[in-house]
Amino acid sequence: MARALEVVGERWSLLIVRDALFAGVTRFSDFQRGLGIAPNVLAARLDAFVAVGLMERRRYADQPEQFDYVLTPMGRDLSGSIVALTQWGDRWAGTGEPPILYTHAGCGGAVESRSVCRRCGTQDPDDVQARPGPGMPEGYVEARRRGRTA
Amino acid sequence: MARALEVVGERWSLLIVRDALFAGVTRFSDFQRGLGIAPNVLAARLDAFVAVGLMERRRYADQPEQFDYVLTPMGRDLSGSIVALTQWGDRWAGTGEPPILYTHAGCGGAVESRSVCRRCGTQDPDDVQARPGPGMPEGYVEARRRGRTA
Repeated sequence: MARALEVVGERWSLLIVRDALFAGVTRFSDFQRGLGIAPNVLAARLDAFVAVGLMERRRYADQPEQFDYVLTPMGRDLSGSIVALTQWGDRWAGTGEPPILYTHAGCGGAVESRSVCRRCGTQDPDDVQARPGPGMPEGYVEARRRGRTA
Repeated sequence: MARALEVVGERWSLLIVRDALFAGVTRFSDFQRGLGIAPNVLAARLDAFVAVGLMERRRYADQPEQFDYVLTPMGRDLSGSIVALTQWGDRWAGTGEPPILYTHAGCGGAVESRSVCRRCGTQDPDDVQARPGPGMPEGYVEARRRGRTA
């Protein structure tokens, strides 16, 4: 998750992706208008997204040169994180009714984020545990455990 | 989601919650050791978490006064967002094998984040759409649409 936050952890990043993904926004001025974000901050974020492969820049006008910013599959795959964070925000950080609803295009039902066991299908957030994966640096868990019990 | 990001959008916030939720960390020095975070930044984050109701502070020693920081239900409910962002990071921003695996405590299967239609059960991220909810400020959508088509 630390790596995810390095790419999209900045304050505006997921809001930009949300507008691209769910409102179909592609143009600099439309991102700016929709989010009320400072142009220099928006430019930095879009450039970073292109550099990391989360968006592609496509020229749509020549004089002056103008670009669409289009999400790649990497960017579109943030859908689930956006739904999950929105759900939490609506539940705990909202001040009234939700401003945006995520729904299933096919039937119109509300879409919600769930943590699902791929083996048995259980959907119980209290039943999720973390354990070190193959990419965990050696000795890291032990060092932390020593720290905690010291 | 903007409200969610106001609460947990800062670079370290979700990493602190992750360590509290999945590694059982409760103490200042253990958060600090585990994350390598500057003490002043960590103190500011924990204070903000307590202020917003995401954590509770419980005194466990008197001289000197020392505290456990314990997630509330509001904090624990970030589980789904953490799993979703980790899944994205492992897929797109990782440089090797995942350092942490989220598994189902009951059967040991891998847990994954999915966007599920509450009405029909469909789980297709490409089939999720956003529409204005009851908390959307009036005129907001029209203003943005005018912007986009101008």
